[in-house]
Amino acid sequence: MTDLARLSLDLSSLAKLYAQGLSPVVLVAEVERRIAAQGDDRVWIGRDPAVLKAQAEALATMPPEERAKLPLFGVPFAVKDNIDVAGLGTTAACPAFAYRPVTSATVVERLVAAGALVVGKTNLDQFATGLVGVRSPYGVPRNPFDPRYVPGGSSSGSAVAVAAGLVSFALGTDTAGSGRVPAGINNIVGLKPTCGALSTTGVVPACRSLDCVSIFALTCADAEAVLDVAEAPDDADAYSRSSGPRPPVPATWRVGVPRPEQRDFQNDASAKAVYEAALERLKALGATLVEIDLAPFLETAQLLYGGAWVAERLAAIKDFATKQPEALLPVTRQIILGADRLSAVDAFQGIYKLREYAKNTAPVWQQIDALAVPTAPTSYTVEQLDAEPIKYNSVLGTYTNFVNLLDLSAVAVPAALSPQGLPIGMTLVAPAWHDRRLLSLAGRFHAATGLAMGATGHTLPVAAPRPATDSAIRLAVFGAHLQGQPLNHELANLGAVLVGPCRTAPEYRMYALANPPRPGLIRVAEKGEAIGGEIWAVPADKLGIFVKGIRAPLGVGTVHLDDGGTVLGFICEGLGVQGCPDITRFGDWRSYKASLTP
Amino acid sequence: MTDLARLSLDLSSLAKLYAQGLSPVVLVAEVERRIAAQGDDRVWIGRDPAVLKAQAEALATMPPEERAKLPLFGVPFAVKDNIDVAGLGTTAACPAFAYRPVTSATVVERLVAAGALVVGKTNLDQFATGLVGVRSPYGVPRNPFDPRYVPGGSSSGSAVAVAAGLVSFALGTDTAGSGRVPAGINNIVGLKPTCGALSTTGVVPACRSLDCVSIFALTCADAEAVLDVAEAPDDADAYSRSSGPRPPVPATWRVGVPRPEQRDFQNDASAKAVYEAALERLKALGATLVEIDLAPFLETAQLLYGGAWVAERLAAIKDFATKQPEALLPVTRQIILGADRLSAVDAFQGIYKLREYAKNTAPVWQQIDALAVPTAPTSYTVEQLDAEPIKYNSVLGTYTNFVNLLDLSAVAVPAALSPQGLPIGMTLVAPAWHDRRLLSLAGRFHAATGLAMGATGHTLPVAAPRPATDSAIRLAVFGAHLQGQPLNHELANLGAVLVGPCRTAPEYRMYALANPPRPGLIRVAEKGEAIGGEIWAVPADKLGIFVKGIRAPLGVGTVHLDDGGTVLGFICEGLGVQGCPDITRFGDWRSYKASLTP
Repeated sequence: MTDLARLSLDLSSLAKLYAQGLSPVVLVAEVERRIAAQGDDRVWIGRDPAVLKAQAEALATMPPEERAKLPLFGVPFAVKDNIDVAGLGTTAACPAFAYRPVTSATVVERLVAAGALVVGKTNLDQFATGLVGVRSPYGVPRNPFDPRYVPGGSSSGSAVAVAAGLVSFALGTDTAGSGRVPAGINNIVGLKPTCGALSTTGVVPACRSLDCVSIFALTCADAEAVLDVAEAPDDADAYSRSSGPRPPVPATWRVGVPRPEQRDFQNDASAKAVYEAALERLKALGATLVEIDLAPFLETAQLLYGGAWVAERLAAIKDFATKQPEALLPVTRQIILGADRLSAVDAFQGIYKLREYAKNTAPVWQQIDALAVPTAPTSYTVEQLDAEPIKYNSVLGTYTNFVNLLDLSAVAVPAALSPQGLPIGMTLVAPAWHDRRLLSLAGRFHAATGLAMGATGHTLPVAAPRPATDSAIRLAVFGAHLQGQPLNHELANLGAVLVGPCRTAPEYRMYALANPPRPGLIRVAEKGEAIGGEIWAVPADKLGIFVKGIRAPLGVGTVHLDDGGTVLGFICEGLGVQGCPDITRFGDWRSYKASLTP
Repeated sequence: MTDLARLSLDLSSLAKLYAQGLSPVVLVAEVERRIAAQGDDRVWIGRDPAVLKAQAEALATMPPEERAKLPLFGVPFAVKDNIDVAGLGTTAACPAFAYRPVTSATVVERLVAAGALVVGKTNLDQFATGLVGVRSPYGVPRNPFDPRYVPGGSSSGSAVAVAAGLVSFALGTDTAGSGRVPAGINNIVGLKPTCGALSTTGVVPACRSLDCVSIFALTCADAEAVLDVAEAPDDADAYSRSSGPRPPVPATWRVGVPRPEQRDFQNDASAKAVYEAALERLKALGATLVEIDLAPFLETAQLLYGGAWVAERLAAIKDFATKQPEALLPVTRQIILGADRLSAVDAFQGIYKLREYAKNTAPVWQQIDALAVPTAPTSYTVEQLDAEPIKYNSVLGTYTNFVNLLDLSAVAVPAALSPQGLPIGMTLVAPAWHDRRLLSLAGRFHAATGLAMGATGHTLPVAAPRPATDSAIRLAVFGAHLQGQPLNHELANLGAVLVGPCRTAPEYRMYALANPPRPGLIRVAEKGEAIGGEIWAVPADKLGIFVKGIRAPLGVGTVHLDDGGTVLGFICEGLGVQGCPDITRFGDWRSYKASLTP
């Protein structure tokens, strides 16, 4: 039992113990012991230890070949109390709203079917409205690093349960940062998946058009393992989506960072120093930092509470909130019922504004693969929040609020502890369906921090290397398909991503074809030169359609590179360049084009 | 002049005349003559014949090599008066709202840059709110088939201008069917493109989230030619989108049709008979009819005026409509200002409902490639509309209202004339970005009807045959991938099927490459011969993987065939055949190989 008390609940440690014969019943008893040892931590709203034990017993009697099919066999997890678990009440931290669901949320069902064990329902900011964890009639979940500080919210109990080593992972929800802010405050990983990737059937809505179920875990690998099970299209959820293009992990990460004057730390010098050190760490991991203008992102964020979206919160509980307004906490009531004054015209005007922001911010993703921001500018004590319940809550959302509105994915990852021992996080943000790509960089970053996991004192397990798969085919382009050139959108539309610049072996002559203007590269036996281009990773299933669209005399074949290798790329029939100017001396198409404009 | 008066303005007829030396100035004079001959047809709101003449003169002095670059050289077109044209006022059929734009709408700019000539601004239902064409202070555009009947709207003037042979094509807008209903009533083609494909910069919004610029033309080929020029992403338009995947034309069309009891013709027996005959015609063209449940589509349609979207119409003109409500026609005022009672909660609840409909209707597109519906259940006289201005308007939108809400594309195409000589249309509907695919089927259907174009009396020009494509990509092979040859299994393993033998144009030399033995086909300027090979249909999503496996000096590009067409196929870099034996005389790879065995 001594060993068990020191067990880390991360998935790889747990899997090892199960392989050595640990019984899920024993594991569950240890979880119960830990929960009891926490005392009045205000993490839980609903639990049923008898059911949990029975489920562990059922797993324990399972034949080995059945066990082997369960990727989350015997993994204990917590569920935010706005997500249904059959047999346990759902309160959304509002006792008068509570109901007893007959079926679990689809995402919970998927996890349980994979062998995971629901330990209980966790505390939250009422109706998931807040980023602080103090807006609950069930009390303030105890911050495991310093009980004077807020635990972060709205998924407060879920984050603390993971950080305190009570469960292996936890489900939260994230509409404005509820899956990331508490991860940062609790020194754990918080994945805000692409909206629609995980079913929200059986989840109490906050803003239905923005909500997603989020994952708290001790490591990025664990978050990905949970994501692999949890993610699936759901016909019953109108906001569920099938996966969009998932670009492969880039060879060199281009990481966007806000301009220095746009970095807001509320004068928290530790937070500033940690963020700057985190950027250096990203560079040490091979990333290139690119300064970007964060202003349009921050302006987008204003729409969430300043615009019409708060009406979604009212739409979610209108009948209840209208009939029993006194059942809501004063701060929650003020926010949600305040939406009553908003008109349909306000709503559509907000939607138009958001469309404009989305349009204006989209090009930045051509320049960068991820955006690295502080998870929150600073952190606050419970006392500070009592004094300024709206203002400080709002500060905590500075770097999270825009993410859901702009249909982005994000991973909050621990960055460092402050000199006072308080966790400080960094968040990586990217377009929808970049979840796993972000987790790969976040995992490398996390490992490099040398931090312990959560408040458990356990060091990060050494991750098994994931095979570098590449579902894309690399294609060398030299003309109109280069970044910024007229046909580049054809590649982008297929979900292709830029791998990087390339140069051919010094064996080519380049000619200027007309109608439309394009370069034709001819491989020659002598007097060839190296020609500059770009390599793009094109989804394998889309390359054929791309090739079909290429006009004579160009085609796709083998291009020899200056590193001695070859790559698929644009080639040209010899007849096609007859009479066309030889433009080899320009070295690449862009230089040739630049020479044409006086 | 006699000849000119009988000229059809469809693009191919016009292009022939320009090729024979017609001057745009003469063409414009003929257009002016036709407009004058119409008398008080209430088609036009704004025109400037002097500017039109000057623009024609500018085109007339253009050197031939410049002309050749203009795909719409000298093509006269009309613009609905809610789309800006620099120098002409924009009224949206509301004189008090009128303004004089300094720049043209982006889509107009693109057409003008391609050589097209703006003849004038056309009448419409005020603020594009209506499907009838009678809601305008500028009068009711005269229906060219029977002046007692409404011309259809809201793009009434644009549709009549095309049908009456006053212009080659016209721009409309389509939010609820305004680009389709008048096409049906006027015996012309109405393309409602994918939302976001054509810029709406410079267009007076109706429902910004649903609006699109639409194209009226005499033929489907003409609509596609205009689409080719008009379509482009626009950074200034928040609703502009880059193209999504565009599936190739299916080999066999699966066409969805409503269940018989869901077919609403308002007891118009002619309309019913025409629709049933249209379905028979689709079958005769090789389509398979699939009965589907239209109910969820019809329910979706109810959201447009029954739900919150009418608030978009108010948002578009709120300041104006609030200050000068008396400036609106009573029926328009009633509809638009009625939205004032709608709350933001109503708006979001409508959006949720739409999401659910979108989710529930999406699977139908796995069963069918297009949905064929009547363009409208029936048509009405002006007198009937005067008596029931809202109810009959609503009936006209039965088969059109759901299209924009569900992000679909559609083509209204003439189906037949009723015994009274009134046009009756059919509309093909498919998901976003299927525009050109729909036009291909609509064009074949249109040709099969034998109808004259619009009210012009001219028969449809014989369309240049478009290559028959299917969801596979055709690939010409000449060596080891031929049936029975060593690498043929690579094609078979990808699910490719043999289409048949082929011969290249007599423009190639064939060389025998070694290691491994393969033919290399080089296109040459002279002394080329025809080479035999095979065409295989390779699944589009597999072709990229196939191409990736091809070894230098071979590649895939354009192969010219002996029938004058081209096909994707094996090409060869010139360097690769140096020193290799010329085996052209064998005519094909199999014969060459046979010659090697004694």
